[in-house]
Amino acid sequence: MADGQPVAPVQTIEDVWEAYQEDIDEVEAHIRRSLDEPSPLIKEVGLHILNGGGKRIRPLLLILCAHLCGYIAKKDLALGSFIEFIHTATLLHDDVLDEADLRRGQQTARRIWGNKTSILVGDYLYSLAMSQIAGFQNHGMNETLSDACRKMAEGEILQLCANYQPTITESDYLRIIEYKTGALVASTCKVGAIIGGATPAQQAALYHFGLHLGMAFQLADDRLDYIANGNRLGKTLGQDLKQGMVTLPLLHLLQHCSTQDRETIIHHMINQTVEEKDLLHIINLMNEHGSMAYAAHRAQEFIDAASLDLKPFDDCMAKRSLRIVAGYMLNRDR
Amino acid sequence: MADGQPVAPVQTIEDVWEAYQEDIDEVEAHIRRSLDEPSPLIKEVGLHILNGGGKRIRPLLLILCAHLCGYIAKKDLALGSFIEFIHTATLLHDDVLDEADLRRGQQTARRIWGNKTSILVGDYLYSLAMSQIAGFQNHGMNETLSDACRKMAEGEILQLCANYQPTITESDYLRIIEYKTGALVASTCKVGAIIGGATPAQQAALYHFGLHLGMAFQLADDRLDYIANGNRLGKTLGQDLKQGMVTLPLLHLLQHCSTQDRETIIHHMINQTVEEKDLLHIINLMNEHGSMAYAAHRAQEFIDAASLDLKPFDDCMAKRSLRIVAGYMLNRDR
Repeated sequence: MADGQPVAPVQTIEDVWEAYQEDIDEVEAHIRRSLDEPSPLIKEVGLHILNGGGKRIRPLLLILCAHLCGYIAKKDLALGSFIEFIHTATLLHDDVLDEADLRRGQQTARRIWGNKTSILVGDYLYSLAMSQIAGFQNHGMNETLSDACRKMAEGEILQLCANYQPTITESDYLRIIEYKTGALVASTCKVGAIIGGATPAQQAALYHFGLHLGMAFQLADDRLDYIANGNRLGKTLGQDLKQGMVTLPLLHLLQHCSTQDRETIIHHMINQTVEEKDLLHIINLMNEHGSMAYAAHRAQEFIDAASLDLKPFDDCMAKRSLRIVAGYMLNRDR
Repeated sequence: MADGQPVAPVQTIEDVWEAYQEDIDEVEAHIRRSLDEPSPLIKEVGLHILNGGGKRIRPLLLILCAHLCGYIAKKDLALGSFIEFIHTATLLHDDVLDEADLRRGQQTARRIWGNKTSILVGDYLYSLAMSQIAGFQNHGMNETLSDACRKMAEGEILQLCANYQPTITESDYLRIIEYKTGALVASTCKVGAIIGGATPAQQAALYHFGLHLGMAFQLADDRLDYIANGNRLGKTLGQDLKQGMVTLPLLHLLQHCSTQDRETIIHHMINQTVEEKDLLHIINLMNEHGSMAYAAHRAQEFIDAASLDLKPFDDCMAKRSLRIVAGYMLNRDR
């Protein structure tokens, strides 16, 4: 899509995808080309997970932030594919860590090709991305993306240490989601700003926009674990709780329910004896104590902060699109 | 050690370590400092494997290459620690892939803290290194080290695909060891050259020096699997064969032994029924058919090539030390 060209106003997330389809198609072409070269196994596993039904939200954010700052060169769209590779590498490793059999309703790579292949293809996609990014010879990009990767790994370790720990604080939880999810979305938006020729202040504004957006997204995702229908999700209800992961709705509940309920929940979590009836009881308690509403409220606050981050930018189709994407990330049911 | 200072001539590997002890100590201090900041788990696991008895061969090569080119700044010694982190990250993941319980006679991290922790701390050390390296804002370093990481991951995948494949060629095998071992040693030497202020031609010469050295090292290591004493190694004899890994001595043997021996060996390997008596028989055959001598000869050829790569450099203590390290890497018994 050429900048400045008159177009119908974007109103829905579908309008946004349609308006920027040409750029997204270029990202897709880069993804396929990058996987053509190495071994057939990398291509097979890479395409399995990359075509596994995930939206290209990160490449879209990169494209929108670049357009917001004025410009996107065709060659820079390759960066969208490299960021998608980084994200995909974390999914491959996550599925090994979680011993997951399903992702978005289809078999995980580890289920089909085994843990070894998933670990190695994850390592490959990550290091391929870093080496291709280095080829752009832009220090700002190198630093923000490598920093995001470090934070993602640190966030996963912080989360591992927080598992089965009902005493973590909301601020511990927020740091975990900032690192494991927020950092890469933030860096993606900053890289979009860099390739769009943004000033350092604009780069910082879009970094914060992405950080707030990523945190809202993770909060919404964690909340969904106590709402969504398992068939639709490709993972069953209450999966986080069963894996000992203490997310915001549970944190809120543990701080507000009766001592007896608190002890029962912690007992079930630590002893890994959460059954369907316990889960439904916990969900009822969450609704009763306003835990779900609280998590939704906190997510909305991050979206509001993201919206404020966009204030310095002139109104344009890219800005309207970023607001629509923000709303979509908050309310999607996957 | 200050350049140009009169010192006793280096003659043994111990002399080399002693002569450059001050620089190595600075690398050690950087390693400890880098692990002080993040979570206690990272520090504990990181120090366990980093202090697990491995020599700091890569930092030493970096230091020697920098001195060979004329100079090493104290702040640049941090790069030695980051390269050690990259190497350590691959060890953590390797032990998960190989389901290894012992490394250098001590329990592996996966055995103590589990696979999850080993995968994540590996991801962390690798991404910490890449982000710290990016902070040096040197495109040559970023590109060569990120390229080395990509090759290492690709080499591991090529090796995974070559496992239990007795029909791979010597050139397939050489590509695997070039990628999985040679590339990082090559990049380490190139980074040493860069921080030493080398010309592009000198950087290329030291890259090739490291590549040849790394390949000689891996060849010697693969050969050792059919020689060394299990107690001394912390891994048992013939481990590669038992894991289906086809290395040069085995490749040579399969190409030179009788059809019947070949079929028996392949049968045992593929069905994972290699017992001590089979292994001893295979080792006898290797000696009989000159497979061990052939592997030693090929390793020596790489060392000779590495020696030629040093030709353009003036004679100095660093150059003599590099030759000593090369000899040590070929002949060490770990």
